[in-house]
Amino acid sequence: MTLTLSSRGQTAPFRAMDVLAEAARLEAEGADIVHMEVGEPALGAPKAAIDALSADLAAGATLGYTSGLGIERLRRAIAALYGRRHGLDLDPRRVVVTAGSSGAFSLAFIALFEAGGRIGLADPGYPAYRNLLGALGLRAVRIETGPTTRFQPTPALIDGIEAGQGALDGLLVASPANPTGSMLDRAALAALIDDCRAARGGAGRALIVDEIYHGLTWSQDAVSALELDDEVIVVNSFSKYWGMTGWRIGWMIVPERLVRPVQNLAQNMFICAPHAAQIAAIGALSPAGEAEAEAELANYRQNRATILTTLTGLGFRDIAPADGAFYAYASLPEGHDDSVAFCRHLLAAHHVAATPGLDFDPVRGAQTVRFSYAQSPARIAEGCARLQRMLAGATPA
Amino acid sequence: MTLTLSSRGQTAPFRAMDVLAEAARLEAEGADIVHMEVGEPALGAPKAAIDALSADLAAGATLGYTSGLGIERLRRAIAALYGRRHGLDLDPRRVVVTAGSSGAFSLAFIALFEAGGRIGLADPGYPAYRNLLGALGLRAVRIETGPTTRFQPTPALIDGIEAGQGALDGLLVASPANPTGSMLDRAALAALIDDCRAARGGAGRALIVDEIYHGLTWSQDAVSALELDDEVIVVNSFSKYWGMTGWRIGWMIVPERLVRPVQNLAQNMFICAPHAAQIAAIGALSPAGEAEAEAELANYRQNRATILTTLTGLGFRDIAPADGAFYAYASLPEGHDDSVAFCRHLLAAHHVAATPGLDFDPVRGAQTVRFSYAQSPARIAEGCARLQRMLAGATPA
Repeated sequence: MTLTLSSRGQTAPFRAMDVLAEAARLEAEGADIVHMEVGEPALGAPKAAIDALSADLAAGATLGYTSGLGIERLRRAIAALYGRRHGLDLDPRRVVVTAGSSGAFSLAFIALFEAGGRIGLADPGYPAYRNLLGALGLRAVRIETGPTTRFQPTPALIDGIEAGQGALDGLLVASPANPTGSMLDRAALAALIDDCRAARGGAGRALIVDEIYHGLTWSQDAVSALELDDEVIVVNSFSKYWGMTGWRIGWMIVPERLVRPVQNLAQNMFICAPHAAQIAAIGALSPAGEAEAEAELANYRQNRATILTTLTGLGFRDIAPADGAFYAYASLPEGHDDSVAFCRHLLAAHHVAATPGLDFDPVRGAQTVRFSYAQSPARIAEGCARLQRMLAGATPA
Repeated sequence: MTLTLSSRGQTAPFRAMDVLAEAARLEAEGADIVHMEVGEPALGAPKAAIDALSADLAAGATLGYTSGLGIERLRRAIAALYGRRHGLDLDPRRVVVTAGSSGAFSLAFIALFEAGGRIGLADPGYPAYRNLLGALGLRAVRIETGPTTRFQPTPALIDGIEAGQGALDGLLVASPANPTGSMLDRAALAALIDDCRAARGGAGRALIVDEIYHGLTWSQDAVSALELDDEVIVVNSFSKYWGMTGWRIGWMIVPERLVRPVQNLAQNMFICAPHAAQIAAIGALSPAGEAEAEAELANYRQNRATILTTLTGLGFRDIAPADGAFYAYASLPEGHDDSVAFCRHLLAAHHVAATPGLDFDPVRGAQTVRFSYAQSPARIAEGCARLQRMLAGATPA
């Protein structure tokens, strides 16, 4: 007897992770790699987060199970964030602390959708959405987006999909989005919410909004879907703005009626979010923690200008808006038509790690590439200089 | 539009968690509660685990993403544990570090079973098994067990189920088991493995073995399924023997062929296990960490004798084997027939928290109760004295 893999267990790997592995191999050989492949802030967690955990550990905290919804103090601190950022008086009981946004998506997908449910997703988009949906027995329905709709779904695009393929049970949007950085402004988000409300003869289409890049915006603040409607699920995380990727700590806001069922589900699927990360997150939400996170924005802003100027100058096309998040996403310059080969050469010869677009768009991604710029300005400038040398046909420095 | 809960999002709550919440409420009012409801070692993580994390934090570790399979050093340390405990030379590449055993079960269930797959489980058993299976679109098939098979499934019991209900796609066993503490000895485990191999005309029935109570055994060491067969998935955790419940860190061992697909699945579902907990787990696996965990066993052994003597003396019936783990599970004494009412009165009047059996057996659990004894001997003795007072009809002390 041999154990065999189920069909839904066959998910695609992240190419970014393969790039990361190859970069690590080159580093082990002594190469100086500029990391622009993974969406991971180089600075890591705020000192205030580390200090909060260190203090608890020093005081002998045993870090046992917490409630499936998370530590009360953390839930209150997260609710208060919606007051500061969005002027909302959010009931802390609606906050579900999760093991990263990944944990939140699993809970939301299972809580909202019957097996076989069809959920619309923008392409390009974050690859784990469709892979996770598939693993949970759901179907990701591709909504092809491009520069004309700022890489976001619109009611008209959804109408077109539904006319051809049948009604969607759900819609998942991200604002700011990965890999494009594109943001839904208040009007665009309101149009999508209205469309979801009216869908399926008024029964509605469940809307999940990924807001994990909130706080990382470069021209105007992000609008939360909760400013417009309470009957949505909003997902967020400490991974990006607070730089706490490996801690696996995030949250979601659900309508009050769904809190208890989501708590039961969370207990059965996860028991609770990691306790140490919950303590650190309380520190991250302190004024000191937020000041540290905020101080990093100037670097990202400088990096964004550097990389966008570089890509424009080098003839990259369809450069995505980059309203927020820390990514630049674009089609390769003329004369290049294979992003996998492009990224492989960039890494092997010039020691710059970037992600081929196929992670984000299985169709058009063969011609696109994503650069993550959550690094120090010096490193991003160095990465851009190397990219310029490669496209100038110069030998590596 | 209102968001509605899916059918598979409707999981049962753990009654143990409701007991815990009520106990916390009484404590907030000043009550001195003896906690025997949740399977959580009171002592918490070994000092060696805390020290490992504290040292890394003090050195400025950023705790970014790790590989979806976990930190190499941790995987090697886990593989080495199978050498010490079971004399096995386990390839570290087969170790998948997970967010607790919960994370491992999600990965194993999705990797092995198509939607609608039918998995056999012993009743009584750990409730999250069946709830998680349901949430993932799978079907838990109840295998009623009792004292005659030491509360474990046997090939004969499985034959009976399959004759009446059709073939099982998988079997999940736990040794030692929760809530009964019952252990499969080498012969019993070998018989189940042979039966799984021969099932479905030789195609086999996938076997998952929960070994999270290994190390906590009271008469003979636990046998790992890996001593008998490599074509099984074995799940384990740092929550019980090492007392690291809230850290959410565990692992599973899979056949080498499944490592890469499970890695992809893990990346999409979890990104990685919590980094801080991985660092702490490396400390827990040090000689110092293991010495601390081992030192706790004398307390558990004493508690086990106290509680089993107490239950026997009070007329509790069908007391389960308690070969391992830190639970005593039994049917109520004559004259009592409602375990929920029994536990409610025990908590309200005598301030002892215990779990009604309905968490573990939806049918017969109305007459059974589970006591967890992962506390100091003084507290368990106090809990037993209070239980004796209640059954003697005495007023609370």
